[in-house]
Amino acid sequence: METEDLYDLIIVGGGPAGITAGLYGTRQNLKTLLITKDFAGQIGRKTIPVENWPGNLKISGPALIKNFEKHLRRHLIDIERDEVSKIKKLKDGCFLATTKSKNKFRAISMIIATGADPRPLEIPGEKEFLGRGVSYCPLCDGPLFSGKTVAVVGGGNSAFEAILFLAKYVKNIYVLEHGPKVVAFSDLQDKAMKTGKVEIITNASAKEILGKKAVESLVYQETNKKSKETLKISGVFVEIGNHPATSFVKELVDFSERDEIKINPKTCETKTPGLFAAGDVSDVFPKQIVVAAGEGCKAAINAYKYINESKIQNSKIKD
Amino acid sequence: METEDLYDLIIVGGGPAGITAGLYGTRQNLKTLLITKDFAGQIGRKTIPVENWPGNLKISGPALIKNFEKHLRRHLIDIERDEVSKIKKLKDGCFLATTKSKNKFRAISMIIATGADPRPLEIPGEKEFLGRGVSYCPLCDGPLFSGKTVAVVGGGNSAFEAILFLAKYVKNIYVLEHGPKVVAFSDLQDKAMKTGKVEIITNASAKEILGKKAVESLVYQETNKKSKETLKISGVFVEIGNHPATSFVKELVDFSERDEIKINPKTCETKTPGLFAAGDVSDVFPKQIVVAAGEGCKAAINAYKYINESKIQNSKIKD
Repeated sequence: METEDLYDLIIVGGGPAGITAGLYGTRQNLKTLLITKDFAGQIGRKTIPVENWPGNLKISGPALIKNFEKHLRRHLIDIERDEVSKIKKLKDGCFLATTKSKNKFRAISMIIATGADPRPLEIPGEKEFLGRGVSYCPLCDGPLFSGKTVAVVGGGNSAFEAILFLAKYVKNIYVLEHGPKVVAFSDLQDKAMKTGKVEIITNASAKEILGKKAVESLVYQETNKKSKETLKISGVFVEIGNHPATSFVKELVDFSERDEIKINPKTCETKTPGLFAAGDVSDVFPKQIVVAAGEGCKAAINAYKYINESKIQNSKIKD
Repeated sequence: METEDLYDLIIVGGGPAGITAGLYGTRQNLKTLLITKDFAGQIGRKTIPVENWPGNLKISGPALIKNFEKHLRRHLIDIERDEVSKIKKLKDGCFLATTKSKNKFRAISMIIATGADPRPLEIPGEKEFLGRGVSYCPLCDGPLFSGKTVAVVGGGNSAFEAILFLAKYVKNIYVLEHGPKVVAFSDLQDKAMKTGKVEIITNASAKEILGKKAVESLVYQETNKKSKETLKISGVFVEIGNHPATSFVKELVDFSERDEIKINPKTCETKTPGLFAAGDVSDVFPKQIVVAAGEGCKAAINAYKYINESKIQNSKIKD
């Protein structure tokens, strides 16, 4: 038998979903632990100000998540700065979370809110030139390409947010979209085209990244064409979406075709009773900050119901 | 054929769900109209500060909704200060909204976000003494009962928020809960009991409100008892929950057993294609500001998909 402290609730992840779940869990007097390596995630990487968090006309991603973190820390919550490597359901019905530092924590209920990590292209040259022209973080690396020509691979919201940020520094931006048209929100597309620096190439798949010491060109192929085209560029920003961060929980949940954790959309519960998922790690749509926060609340209140019912059952067994 | 302007999207309601839907609709370049009699609703009536809107440690309800309204007004949106009395689906697939002032507006898609109104007790004396001791608005009327004894009927979150506010003014508060225990969030219960002014009576149904010119007493009956009890009080605050505001849309939607509009929880769509519902008017759980905001975003993005598909279809018919 393990001797770990028993929490009512363990939340994994420090983004809008995890933090909101933490707010609601602690306000319900649940003994709550939040495990996260940082309070940043996708919002921390945001390249342009957030303008769609209701009540804030404009706020930088890092400032918004800082507000969230400050709010959370006003509450009685334990915070463990680590990553979870494994979750198990024990025979007594509790969950056991093991972290990369080999610490173990036990809880009656758990909420997974680990968000998503950038999805790689998986083409030749991508790994080799990482940090030498290939980037998944325009905010970190964009200014290094001042006056140069770069490619952004992807046509969704995060790609266009990247484009808007990069346009402040670079000379020209090629946008490679796999499908017949880009799908970013209209306001983002409009702003991007107004920069006059953007050329969109649709029906185009990135095939290879070439260079000597650093990236020099990107090879792509148009749909239904045999020949390949080459773009002379100094940087490749990969923005083809995110991949839910779920490696530690494979056995306890079902996955969507996009590898998101399938949830009951009314309660955020996974197929394992007592195990919830909220925000971008789940199959909720759309992936927006305000949606993730709402889902975090939903998950916490439904976890609270689960924990209460489980405590009542346990006390009956003891009687 | 009507000659009204055709909107892409009409949103009915000016609370967190309606405003967030408005933000997302306009940012998607949808021609959007929001119809609401005010920007207040339940948040405007909030008796205690909001402490669970992520990123704001503490903010008054009216101040929070003002922030939301200000944010919305930065966007290209038409706002009609009125109430909707009827929604019809026309033969061409569009929706027609008629307001109390007999104005008509047409749209491809609609989102209902009208929230909920206080639910009445429906007992003798309630209507007669409205404004003379009976109140649905502690924020408006609480200070009138300074130094007096009042009753709060209800044991949920809004009842306990009312208690916390009233405790600043009144001498004593009887809480009448119909069921075997109160169900408000733990933090609210704790704070209420700490005031030392609260006596909770469970398994008790309010039966009649008595008085001469104003309220003088409340009669209640305990479950499984034949005799009735009388409380000498000067005020009765009715906090037995809210009733979804849906009278204008009866034919187009299905209802839950609590009279909420049933939605597809993944998309917020009702049983009528193109008609969405978001926030407290729907059967979403829990009824929280951050959840309502998230649902407003969900509804708007799914309405955007519906509108785009509908436009593509129409342009095909014209070809």
